[in-house]
Amino acid sequence: MAKEITSKEDNYSQWYNDIVVKAGLADYSAVRGCMVIKPYGFAIWEKIQRQLDNMFKATGHQNAYFPLFIPKSFFSKEASHVEGFAKECAIVTHYRLKNDPNGKGVIVDPEAKLEEELIVRPTSETIIWNTYRNWIQSYRDLPILINQWANVVRWEMRTRLFLRTTEFLWQEGHTAHATKEEAIDETLKMVHVYADFAEKWMGIPVLIGTKSEGERFAGALDTYCIEALMQDGKALQAGTSHFLGQNFAKAFDVKFATKDGDMDYVWATSWGVSTRLMGALVMAHSDDKGLVLPPKLAPTQVVFVPIYRNDEELEKVSEKVLELKLKLESKGITTHYDDRDTLKPGFKFAEYEMKGYPIRIAIGPKDLEKNTAEVARRDTLTKEFVNQDILVDYIIELLDKIQSNIFQKALKFREKNTIAVDSYKEFKKVLDDKGGFILAHWDGTKETEERIKEETKATIRLIPLTGEEVGLCMITGKASKQRVVFARAY
Amino acid sequence: MAKEITSKEDNYSQWYNDIVVKAGLADYSAVRGCMVIKPYGFAIWEKIQRQLDNMFKATGHQNAYFPLFIPKSFFSKEASHVEGFAKECAIVTHYRLKNDPNGKGVIVDPEAKLEEELIVRPTSETIIWNTYRNWIQSYRDLPILINQWANVVRWEMRTRLFLRTTEFLWQEGHTAHATKEEAIDETLKMVHVYADFAEKWMGIPVLIGTKSEGERFAGALDTYCIEALMQDGKALQAGTSHFLGQNFAKAFDVKFATKDGDMDYVWATSWGVSTRLMGALVMAHSDDKGLVLPPKLAPTQVVFVPIYRNDEELEKVSEKVLELKLKLESKGITTHYDDRDTLKPGFKFAEYEMKGYPIRIAIGPKDLEKNTAEVARRDTLTKEFVNQDILVDYIIELLDKIQSNIFQKALKFREKNTIAVDSYKEFKKVLDDKGGFILAHWDGTKETEERIKEETKATIRLIPLTGEEVGLCMITGKASKQRVVFARAY
Repeated sequence: MAKEITSKEDNYSQWYNDIVVKAGLADYSAVRGCMVIKPYGFAIWEKIQRQLDNMFKATGHQNAYFPLFIPKSFFSKEASHVEGFAKECAIVTHYRLKNDPNGKGVIVDPEAKLEEELIVRPTSETIIWNTYRNWIQSYRDLPILINQWANVVRWEMRTRLFLRTTEFLWQEGHTAHATKEEAIDETLKMVHVYADFAEKWMGIPVLIGTKSEGERFAGALDTYCIEALMQDGKALQAGTSHFLGQNFAKAFDVKFATKDGDMDYVWATSWGVSTRLMGALVMAHSDDKGLVLPPKLAPTQVVFVPIYRNDEELEKVSEKVLELKLKLESKGITTHYDDRDTLKPGFKFAEYEMKGYPIRIAIGPKDLEKNTAEVARRDTLTKEFVNQDILVDYIIELLDKIQSNIFQKALKFREKNTIAVDSYKEFKKVLDDKGGFILAHWDGTKETEERIKEETKATIRLIPLTGEEVGLCMITGKASKQRVVFARAY
Repeated sequence: MAKEITSKEDNYSQWYNDIVVKAGLADYSAVRGCMVIKPYGFAIWEKIQRQLDNMFKATGHQNAYFPLFIPKSFFSKEASHVEGFAKECAIVTHYRLKNDPNGKGVIVDPEAKLEEELIVRPTSETIIWNTYRNWIQSYRDLPILINQWANVVRWEMRTRLFLRTTEFLWQEGHTAHATKEEAIDETLKMVHVYADFAEKWMGIPVLIGTKSEGERFAGALDTYCIEALMQDGKALQAGTSHFLGQNFAKAFDVKFATKDGDMDYVWATSWGVSTRLMGALVMAHSDDKGLVLPPKLAPTQVVFVPIYRNDEELEKVSEKVLELKLKLESKGITTHYDDRDTLKPGFKFAEYEMKGYPIRIAIGPKDLEKNTAEVARRDTLTKEFVNQDILVDYIIELLDKIQSNIFQKALKFREKNTIAVDSYKEFKKVLDDKGGFILAHWDGTKETEERIKEETKATIRLIPLTGEEVGLCMITGKASKQRVVFARAY
């Protein structure tokens, strides 16, 4: 029997959690707020990593690795940075346990106290810019284009699998440049790499823009982001790219000799995406039967299930399946043959629907007779009988079709749920009725932004890069340069 | 000019450090005992990771990810495990910083003290077996064959880049089995995977064996290991594979229903290699000109350096180089063309020797005339003029030759430095004269092992898997079942 999941309509939040757990993606651990990423979930993350890593390398970046720990004093050096991160960090204060003199297991050895506490990195700007000081003397040492794949820790009070966990996995790019222009170009280049990845690989359409001052990364002059719309009408920030100006170079005294022989502070960017993308992937496409995966990120793209009543039939079916499987694999398609004898086909069908395998192929004695195979699509839940002679080409084409259909479906959903409003009343009505992205005029002040947030829980998700329609702020009636995108968000 | 490094003869330890730093592999960080792995070093580590990961997957393992933090109480559950790791761990006690009321940066918020301290994982047996309890009910859930790529922290007092650092990167396999035999088979299988990798990819010959009781992993019933010999005659443990028996299953109450309907504790293994392998790679092959890399792990296998006096010559040379480069790349060979105009060829040659690029090809106007290229091998430092028409096949063959030569050279060195001795006097003489692996009879007791260690600093590196020559212990004269391998070690 299939493991039942809560329906999306009944309880979206529980539906999400059910899929994450029952599809075998992740689970809570014994450590508050930390998750275990299970093999199937990790296999998807590995596909995400591999492709992003290729894209980073194709844009000239190299990987490196910096320490997990950051001396506490480093955090005080960039004022807004410490404000943003100090309230949510894990602090190492001791370096030894000893046996409890009372015989109850082990206790922290009070004599092994660190002189300076170490923070488990919530992000690595400080330790990296402290290192870059030794690497950069002249413009000849620039640019530095480095990325790091790492775990980070932010002490979150309310956690949700993948979307918000105390420890998460991510990549953080940290680049150093001789000019402001070059750093801004890099910031923009990387937010577009993220957008490309989200749309072409994850099948998730995204908006690109900048954050308002209130939503910026702690220490950045400008934060570019990609924002996606989930099926419950809430937005999810899927990636950010920060133009850091000379803030960190000043905080860590990183100067370089320019071509003209002057000394100047180095310009910086940082950009990152995390295992949060896994949450976006689940939320964007899945349905009440479970996960729906775009073929490009599915660990296994095609699963074969045999239909048979006795050993003799199984043997004949298996022979055919193995022949077809080999042909698909020779074309680079990942496959699995589930010939477990203890489970009924119906059970297997439900399991692969739960896990989001893009294509399921069932073959039984009748198919052998007719030279056909029953091909089922996970995205549309439709089935078709396909002649075995054309199966390979059919599957190759179908994988492309599924990838594109998943994206188109999400795009249509977003279009349907993106609405321009001109009054605060309308704004609140749309927000409560169906959510989605709401395009509205805003006077550009922090006060107005705060008021809207407090009254509606909606935030400015981004300021679009191209928006030229001037207007009047829906709250204050003051001038607005362009519409900005509001939504309630994860 | 080339950056000078200390000669191996003068100061082996400084020579090692110079190569690691000057070849751009790693450097010390601002955090005590933690290193920064620089892009070139990380590129080698990525090659190591990729190949090992392929080998793990080919033997049926999947990756997953478990929390960085381990509740303190978990450590008390397996008695010998806590003994082995409690003395060297980083402990998280608080989860918030706050502004110093005296205005001096930030301080730990005393109100944000954790109820139970968290240990930054030194290894993950405890958190993983605590998780496996929820995953295993019946023999049908077994085996579990999981690997994790992760960072771990052990609070080392004396650290050395790659060889012993407070934080390091590694992989840790953790498998669960229904029978003792299956777990032992797994332990053995993985130590052989490590040996294969060391010999075929790293070009480092290794001995395989088990550890004596005193050198076993804390919590293991048996530790298998691979040991390599470095050029200074000291041994380096390059990988371990532990048969954990039912120790962790008992500590975390992980039972399963057997096929016969009984309940039994699950059998466990764990196995790991770390960034320590980078240290072994440097020490095993390098010389006074710098790093020597086996072609299979070199981020770039072939570098082209143009020889020219003017722009016109450079243009002609470049045209030819780019043509040859493309041909090599089409065969899967990684290449780089260094056409930096501000540096002399001699400087470039020294730089690529320092970084251990396996093959350097220089092409100048005379080569264009004669249709030749000057091909220099890093491993032998020899050069040869090769006809351009046969260059591609020549290079393909040469890369294989270099890979094999590096291994053969290390093997000959080890053979020359592996000596059987029959008296303690001889033992000490060999140890002080040249070190190396010393095969000697030992009575099997902890006392004798301890005495030898105290008196000579040599330890039992391993007990060979196949050793049938009985004899008498060189210390006590008691019976010995086989010779064991002694050495001073990193």
